[in-house]
Amino acid sequence: VSVKPCRRFALPAGLDTPVPVVDIEVLDANVGRMAAAMKARGVALRPHFKTPRMLEVARRQLDAGAVGITCATIGEAEALMASGVGDVFIAYPVWASEPKAARLARLLDLPGKLTVGIDSLVAARQLANGLAGCGRSPAVLVEVDSGDLRTGVRPERAGELARGVIELGLVVDGVFTHGGHGYEPDCSDEAADDEVRSLEAAAASLRNSGVQASVVSAGSTPTALRSARGAVTEERPGTYVFGDWQQVMLGSCRSDDVALVVASTVVSMSVAGQFVIDAGAKALSRDRPLWLNGHGCLPSYPQAVISRIFDHHAVCQVPPGSAMPAEGDVVAVVPNHVCPVVNLARNVVVTRNGEAIARWDVVARSI
Amino acid sequence: VSVKPCRRFALPAGLDTPVPVVDIEVLDANVGRMAAAMKARGVALRPHFKTPRMLEVARRQLDAGAVGITCATIGEAEALMASGVGDVFIAYPVWASEPKAARLARLLDLPGKLTVGIDSLVAARQLANGLAGCGRSPAVLVEVDSGDLRTGVRPERAGELARGVIELGLVVDGVFTHGGHGYEPDCSDEAADDEVRSLEAAAASLRNSGVQASVVSAGSTPTALRSARGAVTEERPGTYVFGDWQQVMLGSCRSDDVALVVASTVVSMSVAGQFVIDAGAKALSRDRPLWLNGHGCLPSYPQAVISRIFDHHAVCQVPPGSAMPAEGDVVAVVPNHVCPVVNLARNVVVTRNGEAIARWDVVARSI
Repeated sequence: VSVKPCRRFALPAGLDTPVPVVDIEVLDANVGRMAAAMKARGVALRPHFKTPRMLEVARRQLDAGAVGITCATIGEAEALMASGVGDVFIAYPVWASEPKAARLARLLDLPGKLTVGIDSLVAARQLANGLAGCGRSPAVLVEVDSGDLRTGVRPERAGELARGVIELGLVVDGVFTHGGHGYEPDCSDEAADDEVRSLEAAAASLRNSGVQASVVSAGSTPTALRSARGAVTEERPGTYVFGDWQQVMLGSCRSDDVALVVASTVVSMSVAGQFVIDAGAKALSRDRPLWLNGHGCLPSYPQAVISRIFDHHAVCQVPPGSAMPAEGDVVAVVPNHVCPVVNLARNVVVTRNGEAIARWDVVARSI
Repeated sequence: VSVKPCRRFALPAGLDTPVPVVDIEVLDANVGRMAAAMKARGVALRPHFKTPRMLEVARRQLDAGAVGITCATIGEAEALMASGVGDVFIAYPVWASEPKAARLARLLDLPGKLTVGIDSLVAARQLANGLAGCGRSPAVLVEVDSGDLRTGVRPERAGELARGVIELGLVVDGVFTHGGHGYEPDCSDEAADDEVRSLEAAAASLRNSGVQASVVSAGSTPTALRSARGAVTEERPGTYVFGDWQQVMLGSCRSDDVALVVASTVVSMSVAGQFVIDAGAKALSRDRPLWLNGHGCLPSYPQAVISRIFDHHAVCQVPPGSAMPAEGDVVAVVPNHVCPVVNLARNVVVTRNGEAIARWDVVARSI
């Protein structure tokens, strides 16, 4: 695949590397572009919080028109709702035993709406029983598998499950899916179609079971902007907000639209033909689909390949004759997958025109 | 390779999964066994803190006879020295520009001894210049490559580098290496020998350059306990304290000696032949050497393979006819590589005989 190298990132001086650096103008452009696309289509946008994990980003997405926020964990929902976000969907098959049931009960005491995913009747029963004492319950979306074979029931079974959930006294708002199988080269179009087909079949299954449901929720960054989204009423992309090398290579993000890099320092050049940076797996993560060459992209050294990664080092191999940095240079790395990278950081440096203007905290790490 | 499955781990009830759980008796046995082996050999033990990242563990290692602690980052050294650990070695080619130089200067104001790694004269010059204002400097160990081709000079160049470092006004205490190429099946013996050979050549190079140096520091968990350690005066293993699936498969740790598992909940069984747990890559990391089958080991379901891992889900494939858990069950996972797993957690649950007795905080995550 021939891909333009990522735009060079202007890094402020004096960074304590390794640290993620966000270009706020690129971020805002990404936020605005997705919001405009969804508005033009008349579809609700509910961005996934597992990518940014920063309240400042969620606020910008809501200000741009997002109807609410998606998240993966109760901890993320706690951070969001405590900060005043009024409509949160935990797009995850929550198992509501203690202490998670008590945490959900506390969330239900906050103002706003909470929705959770369910993909089995036993999980729904656990939810109803776990929250029986608190007198409230979250709304439910039934998770449907659209080809990723991870979680979610088959579309034709959605109606039966929805009926069972309703009989437990819970409210079913609709169905959702995640076409995760679109994270492969040349698979995004098919995964996008699979999402639509599966959701439409699931919505029909609900209707056939006599369940009224308004939400038909799809999405991932590779599929959200594809055309022909049929009955989909809501999209939940996450990664679009920063982009990453995987999304660039999938064609879901232009290389100029990457809004986050990991600033790292060249700490060793002892071995010929390579340089070593201090952004190891504890900064870049080990996420590397087998079809991606290396552990990230170095915009200033496009010939270099991050060939090996360790907890605190990454080895960048450089072909003979290509440019090399000097020891102590600070270089930007576009990570393969930005979601775990943000989760590994305490906070990020926010820049405008290469100047540091803020630090944003990463919240709800690993809870 | 035929390996006994890991011992089943007794998990306390009511865990908020995913969360690491430590068996304190196995931990203490691991701490004691390595300490006794090093004492018997007359070699100093300086365990690596990048594995446990918990002050309670470092304290137990010191109480068992460790001479000091090894770490990878200034943040780890800050946590250790602030808690009173009096002899810390940052086994990393520190680049002492600001703000790291100021952080090192503050460490030098604390009681105790600080040592850093150096593998180039430019880095040593940066260290001397960066700390020129504070009137103190850390001791230096010269890093030597022993075959991993990551960082460190060739052994025969160690003396020349040491001389240059001394001319900058710094004190060189000796040489160190990490035989990271021992992290492959059937490579540990050779890597152990490479460490010894390289360190002895480096020590000879220092002597030939007229540099008196007493420390000859090697080590990693796969190599520390090998025999014939020649001139080595100090070992720096880290992973031995908890063990992990990789170390079991390398033969560096018995399956009964794994002291840490990630407790996770079965959250979905929608797809036939598999179950999905809530310990995804944000709990287990993505560390998987290509020679390891899957993303961890499930002691209670030894036939299951963690075939796919996502940020917040892991898919466990089970052959037909094998035992399956039920939804909501809490299952233990022995991670492939424990170091990034601890770094992903806020704290761990400490157990004795399956009862939770404490929570230990993970410190200096990602700093």
